[in-house]
Amino acid sequence: MAERIAQTVRTYLERVAAGQAAQIAELYAPDGTLEDPVGTEPKQGREQITEFYGALSGLDISTELLTLRIAGDTAAFHFRVTTRHAGGASVIEPIDVMTFDDAGLITSMRAVWGPADVRNEPKE
Amino acid sequence: MAERIAQTVRTYLERVAAGQAAQIAELYAPDGTLEDPVGTEPKQGREQITEFYGALSGLDISTELLTLRIAGDTAAFHFRVTTRHAGGASVIEPIDVMTFDDAGLITSMRAVWGPADVRNEPKE
Repeated sequence: MAERIAQTVRTYLERVAAGQAAQIAELYAPDGTLEDPVGTEPKQGREQITEFYGALSGLDISTELLTLRIAGDTAAFHFRVTTRHAGGASVIEPIDVMTFDDAGLITSMRAVWGPADVRNEPKE
Repeated sequence: MAERIAQTVRTYLERVAAGQAAQIAELYAPDGTLEDPVGTEPKQGREQITEFYGALSGLDISTELLTLRIAGDTAAFHFRVTTRHAGGASVIEPIDVMTFDDAGLITSMRAVWGPADVRNEPKE
């Protein structure tokens, strides 16, 4: 189970970097939920989830897994998302918490980060 | 709310290092739950929670906060626990996920780590 969860987390970060909204949604269970950041209205189901990740489309993004912990049905991971734009880059390093069903699909995702965790790096 | 949560996380790690089981339990809501590691039987209420942390009693422990993220009612934090013993030290770096009530008390704690995350450092 742990190795399967680890692989899904890595695939998730690859697809976020690639901006593949529908393919990200396929990693979720059909009635999976997403709360990003925690405290906002949760999305539920692949349609809403695909729409949410649609915001990534066309962006120049890279992702890097910093720390991954897995126990039972749960993964918690600290990662970096770098979005490059004309003026430089925006960098954010959330901790996401995901739970998984027996088939290895994401049943819930909660992203723990706040506005203070976003860092802007001007172009050199 | 975020600053209050951050302070409680820092106090929590200080009290874990000091092995103060009853004082740790006071940081939890009266019906708070604890699942450490995730996948084990959750403890509920201050009596069970005090008993759980009682295992820290008499150990030579230090704690260090590595990364803290807060959003809404939730904190996720990566930290290091070093337990020194005659043969050296045992080091573990979990990611804990906590939720809080409006009074700033912990309503749930889930510790995400596995046996593979424990590192033994022999005495030099």
